[in-house]
Amino acid sequence: MTVPSQDRLEQTRGAMRASGAEALVLTHLPNIFYLCGFSGSNAILLVFGDAIHLFTDGRYTIQAHDEAPLARLHIVRTPLAEACGEFLRSRLPRKRRRAAFEAASLNFAEWGRLKKAAGQGIRWKPTTELIERIREVKSAEELDLMRRSARLASEVVAEAPAFVRPGVTELEVAAEIDYRLRRKGASGPSFETIVASGPRSALPHARPTAKRLQKNELVVLDLGAILRHYCSDLTRTVFLGRAPARIRRWYQAVEQAQAAAQEALRAGVTAGSVDRAARRLLNQHGLGRYFVHGTGHGLGIEIHERPRVGRSQKQEIRAGYVVTLEPGIYVEGVGGIRVEDEVAVHADRIEVLTTAPRGLLEL
Amino acid sequence: MTVPSQDRLEQTRGAMRASGAEALVLTHLPNIFYLCGFSGSNAILLVFGDAIHLFTDGRYTIQAHDEAPLARLHIVRTPLAEACGEFLRSRLPRKRRRAAFEAASLNFAEWGRLKKAAGQGIRWKPTTELIERIREVKSAEELDLMRRSARLASEVVAEAPAFVRPGVTELEVAAEIDYRLRRKGASGPSFETIVASGPRSALPHARPTAKRLQKNELVVLDLGAILRHYCSDLTRTVFLGRAPARIRRWYQAVEQAQAAAQEALRAGVTAGSVDRAARRLLNQHGLGRYFVHGTGHGLGIEIHERPRVGRSQKQEIRAGYVVTLEPGIYVEGVGGIRVEDEVAVHADRIEVLTTAPRGLLEL
Repeated sequence: MTVPSQDRLEQTRGAMRASGAEALVLTHLPNIFYLCGFSGSNAILLVFGDAIHLFTDGRYTIQAHDEAPLARLHIVRTPLAEACGEFLRSRLPRKRRRAAFEAASLNFAEWGRLKKAAGQGIRWKPTTELIERIREVKSAEELDLMRRSARLASEVVAEAPAFVRPGVTELEVAAEIDYRLRRKGASGPSFETIVASGPRSALPHARPTAKRLQKNELVVLDLGAILRHYCSDLTRTVFLGRAPARIRRWYQAVEQAQAAAQEALRAGVTAGSVDRAARRLLNQHGLGRYFVHGTGHGLGIEIHERPRVGRSQKQEIRAGYVVTLEPGIYVEGVGGIRVEDEVAVHADRIEVLTTAPRGLLEL
Repeated sequence: MTVPSQDRLEQTRGAMRASGAEALVLTHLPNIFYLCGFSGSNAILLVFGDAIHLFTDGRYTIQAHDEAPLARLHIVRTPLAEACGEFLRSRLPRKRRRAAFEAASLNFAEWGRLKKAAGQGIRWKPTTELIERIREVKSAEELDLMRRSARLASEVVAEAPAFVRPGVTELEVAAEIDYRLRRKGASGPSFETIVASGPRSALPHARPTAKRLQKNELVVLDLGAILRHYCSDLTRTVFLGRAPARIRRWYQAVEQAQAAAQEALRAGVTAGSVDRAARRLLNQHGLGRYFVHGTGHGLGIEIHERPRVGRSQKQEIRAGYVVTLEPGIYVEGVGGIRVEDEVAVHADRIEVLTTAPRGLLEL
C-alpha cells in the first residue's frame, strides 16, 4: 500500500473548516481508506486540524499499523462510536466545540453512542459527500491504478470467446469471469458480475441465473475488477450466432450513442450534456424510449461515485474525473444491448481506459 | 424462491406489539428478505398488523412482484425513507401512533427523512435485533438449504489436494476455491475466502495475498458458500509436507477442543458453556493463551448471526439453532491451526452439517 498523499488531508481540512467544524468524524469506510490507507472492515477516522486518529478493534492491530502510519491508532474494545465520542469530549477545545459527521453512514444506534459519549456542548453538523467531492478528482497515482484495473477487466472480456457459448449457464459464465479476474491479480470483482442472456438481457440489472445460453441470443456481460482497491467497469454485448439485421442496426446505434457521449465528454461541460449527446443519437434511431437509465457514473474506490452522468445533471466535468459511458437499449421480450467503457478526463483530452474491442461479437 | 412462511410474520407482529408499536419500519435487507422474500439491494419493508408494504425503486419492479407476492408494492422515485414516512403519516390510526424501527440499520440522513415525512405525533421506538432473534431458530426448510450449502462448501474443501500445493499464491488458491463454489451452484462465497499460509496463518482474519505457499507450512482455508441465500462456513488446516510432531500435537488438541464443544452443544445449555468446553481442552494442553477468539457464531442468511458462542455468553441454545464451532490456536511467527464445522441443534441431538474430513491433511 502506498500512503495517501498529504494533499487529500489538506483538502479535507479545508472542507471541514468551511463547514465550521473543528473535528470531523468519518464512518464511511471508502473515505477512511482514501484518507489514511486503512482497509479493515471496522473503523472510525477522526480528523482534527493537526492530527488524524484511527479507531479500530484488536483484530486489526497489525494491519492498521502497516496501512495507516500517519494516523494515531486507538485499538478499542468498546463500540467505536463510543470510544470516539469519549475522545472527542476530552480533546475538543472548550470554547468552540463543533464536530461534523457523515449523515449517510452513521446509523441511529451509533449516532446515539457518539452523542452520549461526547457529552453536552458539542454542536453536531451532519455532512453529505464531503470527502466524496474530493474523491471525484483522481490523482496521477490513482489514475494509474484505474488504468491497470480497467485493462485487467478488458482482458477478461476479450477472452469471452473461450467460455461464452450455447449450453453453459449464466452462473457458469459469471464464475469463469470472476475466476479469470482473480487469476490476473484482481482481489475480486468490483460488483456482482452480470451475465444476462436472451430476454433476460433486457433487464439492466439482471443477476446471473441457472438459465443456459442458447443459439441466436444476445448476451450482456457487465463486469469489473478491484485491483489494489480501485474498481473498473465495462460491458460488452455478444450475439450467439450470426446476428440478424435488426440486431446489427441496434448495436450500431448504441455504439454510435457511446461515441457521441465520448465526443461530448471533456473538462468544462456539464454531466447532463454528455448524457443528452448519447440520448439524442438513440432518439435519432427511434430507440430513445428503450434507453431507460443514465449514461454513466463516476467510479474509483467505489463502483458508483460522483458524478452521475444523467440527463439533468448540472455538475461540471473536471480534469481528473473517471466516468463510465454506458448507453443501452432494453426491448422487453427480445433482449438488451449495452456498450460500456471507462473514460478518464484530462485537461485537454479524454482517455479511454478500457481496452477491449468494441464491435458486436458474434460467437 | 419459496415464499417465506406466514409464521415468521406472525412472530414479527408479536414482537412489534410487545414493543408497543402499531407499525414496524424494517431497513436491514436480510430481515426484509427473511420476511417477504425480496432480495433486491434497495428496500424498506413496513409491517402493520394486517399487511406488509414493500418500498423499492423502478429497477426492481419485476423482481419485487416475483419474489414478494404477499407484500403490497410501492415502486417509488423519491428516497424510500421519505415515501415510507409519507405512507405512515397517511395510515397510522390517529389515536395511537407508535412506530418502531431498526436502530442499527437506519442512517442519520434516512432517519431525518423518515421522521420529517411522517410528520408530528408519531412516537418512534428504536429497536435492536427484533427480527434477528426470530431468525435464530431455523425452519425445516431453512435447515435443508443450510445442509446443502454446507455440503457444497465441504465438497470444495475436500478437493483441496487438487489445488493446494507449494508454489501457488494464496490469491490463486482463493480464486480456485471461489470458482469451484460457483461451479457447484453457489451464487458466491459467503465471505471473502481466507487462505493464510506459513506465519500468516497466525492471523485469524488474514486476507489472501500474493504470498506463495511453501513446503513445510501450515495453510488455513476458511470458506463458505451462499446457496439460495443461505450461508455456510467451514475451516480446514493443511500442512504442506510431513507435519512435525509439535504440529500434530497442536492439531490434535484443536480437534479435541472442537469435539468437546460438540459434546457440550445441545438445546438448553448456555452458549458460554460451549465455548468454555473448547477452551478448557486447550488449556489442558497448555495452549489456551493461543486461542484468541470465541468458539463460534450463528449463521443463516448472514454469515454472522446470533448467537455468539463466546466465553461469557449467557444466551440459551435452542433447537433450530445453527452455529459454527471453530476453536483455533495462533502462534505468532509459527502459524495457526483452526478446525471449524457447522452444527445444527435439534431437540434431542446435534447434526454436523459440514461433511469434509476433519483430520490433519498433509499434502
